[in-house]
Amino acid sequence: MAIENGDFVRVNFTGKTKETDEVFDTTYDEIALEADIFDENKTYKPIPIVVGGNHLLPAIEEEIVGLEAGDRKTVEVASDDAFGPRDPKAIQLIPMKEFKKQGMTPYPGMRISAEGGEGKILTVNGGRVKVDFNHPLAGKDLVYDIEVTEIIEDDEEKIKSMIELHYANPNVDIDKTEISIEDGVVNIQMDEMSKFDQQSYMDVTFARFRISKDVWENIEGVTKVNFVDAFEKREEKEEDEEVAEEVTEATEE
Amino acid sequence: MAIENGDFVRVNFTGKTKETDEVFDTTYDEIALEADIFDENKTYKPIPIVVGGNHLLPAIEEEIVGLEAGDRKTVEVASDDAFGPRDPKAIQLIPMKEFKKQGMTPYPGMRISAEGGEGKILTVNGGRVKVDFNHPLAGKDLVYDIEVTEIIEDDEEKIKSMIELHYANPNVDIDKTEISIEDGVVNIQMDEMSKFDQQSYMDVTFARFRISKDVWENIEGVTKVNFVDAFEKREEKEEDEEVAEEVTEATEE
Repeated sequence: MAIENGDFVRVNFTGKTKETDEVFDTTYDEIALEADIFDENKTYKPIPIVVGGNHLLPAIEEEIVGLEAGDRKTVEVASDDAFGPRDPKAIQLIPMKEFKKQGMTPYPGMRISAEGGEGKILTVNGGRVKVDFNHPLAGKDLVYDIEVTEIIEDDEEKIKSMIELHYANPNVDIDKTEISIEDGVVNIQMDEMSKFDQQSYMDVTFARFRISKDVWENIEGVTKVNFVDAFEKREEKEEDEEVAEEVTEATEE
Repeated sequence: MAIENGDFVRVNFTGKTKETDEVFDTTYDEIALEADIFDENKTYKPIPIVVGGNHLLPAIEEEIVGLEAGDRKTVEVASDDAFGPRDPKAIQLIPMKEFKKQGMTPYPGMRISAEGGEGKILTVNGGRVKVDFNHPLAGKDLVYDIEVTEIIEDDEEKIKSMIELHYANPNVDIDKTEISIEDGVVNIQMDEMSKFDQQSYMDVTFARFRISKDVWENIEGVTKVNFVDAFEKREEKEEDEEVAEEVTEATEE
């Protein structure tokens, strides 16, 4: 069946600049390796999105509408629909002494982080350093090769796919998520290991909010999403040992 | 009714060393001020405990058994039942160069943190620094003035009291906790603000585990405690704004 807005799908993609054919992002490991952008912290596999959910560039999601599972398509995205035009005001002169203060020796091509965001040093001339704070892809027309690998039909699988998208944690097995849906309320109980996440509670809350929003906006009838952490009395062994074991497991991985 | 083991109570106390009458801990603000140990990050009020739950020194909890609400009692605790004897091996000689490495200038009375725990510098002699890693109250007999202010009877209030004891967060209003108990399962939904806790998820899990354990060990029939974070679809305003507002509120406080 042709894909509509609001459908949950999995897609592979490779993004290139139109002018130079340079690959800047991909879901295929072999292409990442070939383009020398392979990131060992990243998992290369189709990513789950909601079509029209702003998970990819809107211009790409529009082109996915009407495709079917297994379809491939090449999509051109003009710079205005991608990362916008280059802004000359985003090129700034910074006094060399600001770099010295931080013990940095700037050189052309160096990438830096500043309050204004990420920048790339263009030139170093005496006391002045010219930094470009434009997005690296600003002003560039892009080409994306898209492949729809799956249309997700089952509501529980749709919910799992959004957890996969918004809450990445290498210690957490997504298949251990328990989901129930009743009277418009989704109850999500994740893999035990998610309890031992070392990131802040607030950051987890933001991920949960994004999951919930995608779920209630795109799954008919859902009005509430509960994330449940259960603590159960066990008679067999000391609970202190239990937690200690789980922590050991969590820190060993 | 006389207090038994497993009862949930609120107590005030002041702990002093027997020999010198020095106050080292108290739940009364005026006594803390007088003893010059007032801590502005601490809330001075009766603390909730489970009698026999190891929340205070066991020797003190034993003496609370048999008291009634409103009762006061003075309890002597021998050092062996408090922080143990002083261990001569916990007094160590540390080369001065270890302090220099860290840019520290040790002096007698200075408190330091090391891998072995907290220590107090006794003497500084040339290249050697003598540090006492014994607990400051080791080897001391103690006197506690105890006042039982309340016996908590209601199960929901018992659960709230354990949240108060194990999960301290100045932004969270304990009275906004929603609790339901059904078929031995306790469902706890805390104040919205708890979602924006900046400590790690794992630390919150440890607090929840301690709450759950005290609950299932001391409230008849409870076998499971669920902590629920609910995310609800609201039609009136943009949810992104909503979260943004809550975060602003959280960071402003």
